[in-house]
Amino acid sequence: MSNMYDSAYELQTAIRESDDFQALKGAFEKVMDDASSKKMFENFRDTQLALQEKQMQGQDITEEEVEKARQVVELVQQHPDISDLMEKEQRLNKAINYLSQIITKPLEELYGTPENNQGE
Amino acid sequence: MSNMYDSAYELQTAIRESDDFQALKGAFEKVMDDASSKKMFENFRDTQLALQEKQMQGQDITEEEVEKARQVVELVQQHPDISDLMEKEQRLNKAINYLSQIITKPLEELYGTPENNQGE
Repeated sequence: MSNMYDSAYELQTAIRESDDFQALKGAFEKVMDDASSKKMFENFRDTQLALQEKQMQGQDITEEEVEKARQVVELVQQHPDISDLMEKEQRLNKAINYLSQIITKPLEELYGTPENNQGE
Repeated sequence: MSNMYDSAYELQTAIRESDDFQALKGAFEKVMDDASSKKMFENFRDTQLALQEKQMQGQDITEEEVEKARQVVELVQQHPDISDLMEKEQRLNKAINYLSQIITKPLEELYGTPENNQGE
């Protein structure tokens, strides 16, 4: 009979203490501790964010921009610490997507109309 | 020291038992129990989903479609049971957005660069 918000704070703590989050934190700090990898990673982030913003605003993305983004990704993936960080980001994102599916299950059950699942 | 997934299932239960979710469930069932409001609500959902799908695929939405969607919204809002359901949906969505902010706080703390918050 626990409260939603209390449960959410418990989950916050569980995420913070999880191996996946601790590994991400370590990888992030390693990249940030080195001026060269920090700059490379921030350049990569900025390029990604700028493209996402354009996309969300419905603006066209030029071939040149796509090419530039591809080059930046290729560059950062060659840096072992950054590619390690990206791998750890992906792992935690996967976990959080799965958590999110667990949490929103009651809504899915409510709106998933049983008639449609019985092959009418 | 609880596991992320155990905590997520606890939160799932807390959401399912919450007043907000129970109120939504009741309102949804009331709309679904009446053939006329059920049809009206499903028509509304279909229109919304079709527009969202077009938007996500980057397709242009015509003025005619916007106008049609506006009319459908106006119509359903006049139905007391449907407008009650929509209000309860909004309330639960707000709660879930807030829960989501609590849960993803560790990531926000990690990536929120302190340099940028000190007005450099």
